[in-house]
Amino acid sequence: MDVCPASITARPRAVHTAEREVYPGYVNPPIVIRPAEPSDHDAIWQVLEPTIRAGETYTLPRDLSRQAALDFWFAAGHAVFVSECQAEVWGTYFLRANQQGGGRHVANCGYMTAPHAWGRGLARAMCLHSLDLARERGFHAMQFNFVVATNTRAVRLWESCGFQIVGRLPLAFHHPTVGLVDGFVMYRQL
Amino acid sequence: MDVCPASITARPRAVHTAEREVYPGYVNPPIVIRPAEPSDHDAIWQVLEPTIRAGETYTLPRDLSRQAALDFWFAAGHAVFVSECQAEVWGTYFLRANQQGGGRHVANCGYMTAPHAWGRGLARAMCLHSLDLARERGFHAMQFNFVVATNTRAVRLWESCGFQIVGRLPLAFHHPTVGLVDGFVMYRQL
Repeated sequence: MDVCPASITARPRAVHTAEREVYPGYVNPPIVIRPAEPSDHDAIWQVLEPTIRAGETYTLPRDLSRQAALDFWFAAGHAVFVSECQAEVWGTYFLRANQQGGGRHVANCGYMTAPHAWGRGLARAMCLHSLDLARERGFHAMQFNFVVATNTRAVRLWESCGFQIVGRLPLAFHHPTVGLVDGFVMYRQL
Repeated sequence: MDVCPASITARPRAVHTAEREVYPGYVNPPIVIRPAEPSDHDAIWQVLEPTIRAGETYTLPRDLSRQAALDFWFAAGHAVFVSECQAEVWGTYFLRANQQGGGRHVANCGYMTAPHAWGRGLARAMCLHSLDLARERGFHAMQFNFVVATNTRAVRLWESCGFQIVGRLPLAFHHPTVGLVDGFVMYRQL
């Protein structure tokens, strides 16, 4: 367990990957994934807001304020990254330990992409980046606690990134248009 | 979804069950389950500390301080109870919403019993009490996010209280003597 850091810092300078990294999975236009900085807050909120307001994929209140959303995204122990395209922030993700104590060797991430950038490989690039980072930081596995079953695009994407559905939470999500639907727990070793 | 409270208060006076309730599942000596009060902090820490120090069942740091443990147990949104036997606190539990937004209709609890009181039905009494309380508060289901697979007594107990294993987290827990073991996600409708 000594390979596991006790905590993860969100300070950009503490990140061990290259500070600016052109991700090979995303070719045209090139995507750059780098640690988030305070000056990114407005751009990150632009990315988060449409997904939070839609309420279809994250277990967050649809009326969450900008400040509360940023507090959640940059919570203690989160390492936060942005993905940029032509110097514009199109996506963001955080990496953290999913549990403490005997569970601290399993990572957890949240990813969001701006709607105009959907379907362009951004989420895949961020997921692959996060898997590399989690390995670097000594994590042994990664767990997604709540993937909404109707979010089939995400389920397929995570499966193609090596995740498996290891749990089904019956009717655990109230989708704003579909009603009560299942949630999935997804997991992969690193 | 309107039956679900947006948040759960931990203030004792806001609890809708009888303030002091002799629980029928626990006969001799009688157990009383009541909302926790600030004056219970020392007694609650006495209950929490042995389980946290053992590190075998909760994903909490084994060296967690008294204050950090109480901050966790009484976190915002937690309704905290104690179970008393002959006016002595032998156990404690919290109830909260497991997720926000579209997942806020699913409850989550944590239970701890003082080692000298193990095997006397205290955890079962607290679990049944929490299921009643969760129904009263409009929750539709209850989820345990991480039951360590080697904690077979707990797994059997939760199953006897109507929970099912709905997920298996492979090698997600580092047990201090057994090594890497699985975790279970357990769930039941209310």
